Amino acid sequence: MKELRVGMIGYGFMGRTHTNAYKRLADFFPVSWRPALQAACGRNEEKARAFARTWGYARVETDWRRVVEAPDIDLVDICAPNDVHAEIAIAGARAGKMVLCEKPLARTLGEAEQMVEAVERAGVANMAWYNYRRVPAIALAKQLVDEGRIGKPFHYRTNFLQDWTISPDVPQGGAALWRLDVHAAGSGVTGDLLAHNIDTAMYLNGAITRVVARTETFVKERVHALTGRTEPVGIDDAALFIAEFANGSLGLFEATRYARGHKALKTLELNGAEGSLRFNLEEMEYLDYFEYPGVPGHVRGWRRIHVTNAEHPYMDRYWVPGLVIGYEHTFLNTLADFVRGLETGERVQPDFRCALQTQKVCEAVLRSAREGRWVETGVDL
Amino acid sequence: MKELRVGMIGYGFMGRTHTNAYKRLADFFPVSWRPALQAACGRNEEKARAFARTWGYARVETDWRRVVEAPDIDLVDICAPNDVHAEIAIAGARAGKMVLCEKPLARTLGEAEQMVEAVERAGVANMAWYNYRRVPAIALAKQLVDEGRIGKPFHYRTNFLQDWTISPDVPQGGAALWRLDVHAAGSGVTGDLLAHNIDTAMYLNGAITRVVARTETFVKERVHALTGRTEPVGIDDAALFIAEFANGSLGLFEATRYARGHKALKTLELNGAEGSLRFNLEEMEYLDYFEYPGVPGHVRGWRRIHVTNAEHPYMDRYWVPGLVIGYEHTFLNTLADFVRGLETGERVQPDFRCALQTQKVCEAVLRSAREGRWVETGVDL
Amino acid sequence: MKELRVGMIGYGFMGRTHTNAYKRLADFFPVSWRPALQAACGRNEEKARAFARTWGYARVETDWRRVVEAPDIDLVDICAPNDVHAEIAIAGARAGKMVLCEKPLARTLGEAEQMVEAVERAGVANMAWYNYRRVPAIALAKQLVDEGRIGKPFHYRTNFLQDWTISPDVPQGGAALWRLDVHAAGSGVTGDLLAHNIDTAMYLNGAITRVVARTETFVKERVHALTGRTEPVGIDDAALFIAEFANGSLGLFEATRYARGHKALKTLELNGAEGSLRFNLEEMEYLDYFEYPGVPGHVRGWRRIHVTNAEHPYMDRYWVPGLVIGYEHTFLNTLADFVRGLETGERVQPDFRCALQTQKVCEAVLRSAREGRWVETGVDL
Amino acid sequence: MKELRVGMIGYGFMGRTHTNAYKRLADFFPVSWRPALQAACGRNEEKARAFARTWGYARVETDWRRVVEAPDIDLVDICAPNDVHAEIAIAGARAGKMVLCEKPLARTLGEAEQMVEAVERAGVANMAWYNYRRVPAIALAKQLVDEGRIGKPFHYRTNFLQDWTISPDVPQGGAALWRLDVHAAGSGVTGDLLAHNIDTAMYLNGAITRVVARTETFVKERVHALTGRTEPVGIDDAALFIAEFANGSLGLFEATRYARGHKALKTLELNGAEGSLRFNLEEMEYLDYFEYPGVPGHVRGWRRIHVTNAEHPYMDRYWVPGLVIGYEHTFLNTLADFVRGLETGERVQPDFRCALQTQKVCEAVLRSAREGRWVETGVDL
Repeated sequence: MKELRVGMIGYGFMGRTHTNAYKRLADFFPVSWRPALQAACGRNEEKARAFARTWGYARVETDWRRVVEAPDIDLVDICAPNDVHAEIAIAGARAGKMVLCEKPLARTLGEAEQMVEAVERAGVANMAWYNYRRVPAIALAKQLVDEGRIGKPFHYRTNFLQDWTISPDVPQGGAALWRLDVHAAGSGVTGDLLAHNIDTAMYLNGAITRVVARTETFVKERVHALTGRTEPVGIDDAALFIAEFANGSLGLFEATRYARGHKALKTLELNGAEGSLRFNLEEMEYLDYFEYPGVPGHVRGWRRIHVTNAEHPYMDRYWVPGLVIGYEHTFLNTLADFVRGLETGERVQPDFRCALQTQKVCEAVLRSAREGRWVETGVDL
Repeated sequence: MKELRVGMIGYGFMGRTHTNAYKRLADFFPVSWRPALQAACGRNEEKARAFARTWGYARVETDWRRVVEAPDIDLVDICAPNDVHAEIAIAGARAGKMVLCEKPLARTLGEAEQMVEAVERAGVANMAWYNYRRVPAIALAKQLVDEGRIGKPFHYRTNFLQDWTISPDVPQGGAALWRLDVHAAGSGVTGDLLAHNIDTAMYLNGAITRVVARTETFVKERVHALTGRTEPVGIDDAALFIAEFANGSLGLFEATRYARGHKALKTLELNGAEGSLRFNLEEMEYLDYFEYPGVPGHVRGWRRIHVTNAEHPYMDRYWVPGLVIGYEHTFLNTLADFVRGLETGERVQPDFRCALQTQKVCEAVLRSAREGRWVETGVDL
Repeated sequence: MKELRVGMIGYGFMGRTHTNAYKRLADFFPVSWRPALQAACGRNEEKARAFARTWGYARVETDWRRVVEAPDIDLVDICAPNDVHAEIAIAGARAGKMVLCEKPLARTLGEAEQMVEAVERAGVANMAWYNYRRVPAIALAKQLVDEGRIGKPFHYRTNFLQDWTISPDVPQGGAALWRLDVHAAGSGVTGDLLAHNIDTAMYLNGAITRVVARTETFVKERVHALTGRTEPVGIDDAALFIAEFANGSLGLFEATRYARGHKALKTLELNGAEGSLRFNLEEMEYLDYFEYPGVPGHVRGWRRIHVTNAEHPYMDRYWVPGLVIGYEHTFLNTLADFVRGLETGERVQPDFRCALQTQKVCEAVLRSAREGRWVETGVDL
Repeated sequence: MKELRVGMIGYGFMGRTHTNAYKRLADFFPVSWRPALQAACGRNEEKARAFARTWGYARVETDWRRVVEAPDIDLVDICAPNDVHAEIAIAGARAGKMVLCEKPLARTLGEAEQMVEAVERAGVANMAWYNYRRVPAIALAKQLVDEGRIGKPFHYRTNFLQDWTISPDVPQGGAALWRLDVHAAGSGVTGDLLAHNIDTAMYLNGAITRVVARTETFVKERVHALTGRTEPVGIDDAALFIAEFANGSLGLFEATRYARGHKALKTLELNGAEGSLRFNLEEMEYLDYFEYPGVPGHVRGWRRIHVTNAEHPYMDRYWVPGLVIGYEHTFLNTLADFVRGLETGERVQPDFRCALQTQKVCEAVLRSAREGRWVETGVDL
């Protein structure tokens, strides 16, 4: 049994989900590496200390450099805001640590490219936490695609709808709301929500080659939580784009935080000549599948698969058929695959290079929206 | 092209649905008999006249005997309250008319037996309007059962839930509310709602042999619409029963008018060793089907069949795939089958003898509820 | 009681739905004009004759000019392929007839403009059959918008998905498949499907001002049903666009005939600051409504309205709560409103001028797809 | 911070779910008692050792008596088969330990009564793991009932449907399949599934006073896993009953392992004069709520509440709105409440006395099925 000594940078929402995954890994997956919660790091010492106490980290740091350089850390996990991803990841790679990074990889394509270069030069294990690939229903979707059940693809449509920023009284910036501050986040829903959908889309349907996009900032100015001043809003509140995939199918993407009634509605649908697939994160235990060949006309229909059987991806590790797992297990599944990769030497996806492709699409979306024209993504899968 | 001259007794809700079927038959079904709306009959002359004018009946009667005896009438259709079904049907049969009767066949088993005897002695075509057999999705369910797709049946559960009599201020009796008056209706939800579910159940799953039931009258007295006096309520507001089917499966039945939020929720589910079926009248365009044999474990699920294709029962007569028909078409489909029976000589079900079996179950349900014990139905299919 | 003498041009799918509406109008709506089926017209005399016999048209014509000029015709209804809409409508208007025209109004904006000019110059009643406005659930959606329940709108997304042309063996052209022949149809899914969605969108959410679109023809050549030769396919198999609405909200539109598993999935969703609405034609009895203000947080959710009550648009004309009507009733509801307009003098929408706005958006979509850039629609509502 | 030293008896499915709860409690709930995994006990030493290693128990025992008597154990948790519940619980109580017991409390009412007597005489904290009370959606249902939103109740219907024993080739007995062995389990679906539904029902709708039931054993004999011989099956494969509640409403209950297509479908619906509630365990993130008073007729409908907000029970402890938790969290929520009870001195339900009431209903169901008559439950809430 080897120890995998974790240095966690950040103690927010993602700090919790990742830590939960480390703590539970060995309870559910028969892996030979056991995560050890070595250090938790955050700028606010009091909060970092409370976080470490709750979850059981051995020590607390307030300067991420001390984590990156510590000899007793094997793996640096970056759960801090987007504006420090690049700097920490590059330093981590240089220090020879494994580097895991919460998505999106970076604020900009430029930052992301430097991160890829750093981990590849250092030859360290690395991964971006696009956790939704490991929703069992999405992993099953991938399996059905790989089994040839969808056939030639024609359409891919997906969205990610939330409603939490409709009120103009929500401030921007600060620890809680850095996602609304363009300096910390790099972009709005494009990096926060669309990036997830792009990663899943390219996982299931291959490279996105061209896009035409429209973004919108519905609330033009908000109070900044740190300065107390009303300042212009720099992020995109909504982002929509039409995509061309390399395989000839057409994509339709939408993300917004202004869709009243949706809290985390992430849906996707893929239509091919032989079959179709449909998923909705708000009821993530289901995958809908329409099978065409060989099904008599009078019994054709969308099949609602309750993805909770031992035959389904990851589900043999949990309970019994019919009983659902939750959002947090997607991180656990992701970590399990990463650690198995350490054992087998296989490079588990999405690594930084893979996440860079998603970054390219995000960048193309933002540019297309700015310039009002079709833009090539340059994705290289 | 032969004429089928119709004498309609009653001008209420069912008078409308049946008349609509007669008027539209030839537009949708290639039949050689064309219904002619010869006479409409009702006790309230003014209302009968308005009804006849709207729908185009050639003449109006206020005494049903004049319809039954008229030489220019081929078919008597009974849409009057339950308390006159037997008398009219027997007279119609004696006069040599075809007799169609809205369900339930009668208030009591005794009445129903006399009706069966009358039509069989007279040798006239006869049918009870258990229209839900001809919901395309239910006809498809029957087809799937007949194809052997369900296998050995274990369970059948069904209900019919409404909420329109919750208020104690709803009066009983009179033209509009005779269904609440035990003298006119014979029973409450047992004859009105359960009878439908029993007919569908025996159509799909065979004879019901024994029942144990519980009925309830939640509102004990109501103003009578005719007398203006508060009188005891004689009907059952709710009726529940456990059933044994001849094939060894168990049934669970429930009907009520006190299920807040349901207007006409009629559901059924059949579980067999090889597959299961599920239906809900409020979204009657769907049949859900779970197929077990030959389906790989990772893609098993309930298939939601949108029953609107030409491959589906009756649907080749209507529009194009994906476009739904409505409640009223169940009457049209029923009539089309009846008329085809006239052409081919085949006895179309449910005839009076078939409807008598449902009456036996209703009677057993009411007796079981009264006596608090299991009761044999005596059903003879 | 006035007669409304109908001359029907075309006997296909739409000829049937419109005729059904004329025949049933007086059964369900208390109108003072009674449609009379005066003449049915089609190029194929045998088929026209069979159509007329089934539905009861008084006479048959094979030259539409004879219908348009007949003194015993009050209203010309155009259900022929798109390539003859303009010619017939203009002639009808000149002859002083009321003109109803199946959608889309025409193949091109130019044709449509001439049609508008003709009916306005002649001062004749006119309407385009965008029947989905009169789905009770969509009419209810409009009512909720008008009641202010949605508030400031942010997003509108809609699609119309079919799968019937995936096989390259489906031929193009001829009586049955003129929708695949660009000469007869003018466009593919843009005029056939998107036009419906555009009309509904502008009905609910106001003018579309700018679009960026992408169309695709997945199957590049098909056998032509008339010539027997393999010929290039000129229509768009799929069309997607991003839209700007005049009210500041963003739209996302998609139509295709290559979405395996969907036969006539027409959905829409509108998100506003105060509430959201969602509809799906395949289960057209429902409208989903999310209400925000005044609802305590712990009971907020999407409300599934079963649009079958007397309180709902049009539903007081049909059966009882809980019982659904079908696709065909949307035409009946539309006709009822048109005829009431004749009685009251009110101009019922969508008239030709209104339908012209939809045509402008279609034209902008096709141009944007061709030119790969944003295009102004010029819609003038 | 106090330690809560746990002795776990059993290492099967329930051993895992409970242990998971103990391990995670402090990560999610701010409690002052911290569970310590002191001892795991099982008859098969090898399996017990593997279980302890995976989950981190400090030591292993193979004789439960050694756990019960150990001075370093505060709490005995019984996850062994039903036939040893009573003996262990009674010994645990006598030894002054807190006793938690997996449901059903016992095989028979007699055993259960002795257990209640033992814990009450000893004055030790005790609870039965009816975990479904702490599904957030069910806890929310209870809250809505308590807020008076349902009004006078009329109907309660519930079922628990599985399909895993349809094949006659499934053996009975042994470690894995003791639930099919009447000697180990006491009953079949009555104790295993119905007990859950009865507990939830009485939690939401009060005492069940009378029942009439029907049970069935579809497969009459199975190979016994231990003896290798084909032996008669003693358990009930299916159990259905009609219930009277003390509040005047009627209940309908069904449980089976022969409902093809259902793995763990546990549904409930409650209809009252003012509103209705509906729940389905297979999509446990939702609660459906129909609100009647004060809602205008045209927008009435079932509201689908996605129970993932901080306003919802327990959900403030987990992630962010829209993100679901899973089955296992119901145990965590239950444990959190139990431990809070230790802190506050409040007796958390369902304690053994409360679970005894469910046992009474189970016993009445089995007796009613045996004797074919209505039976009083004697429930005393």
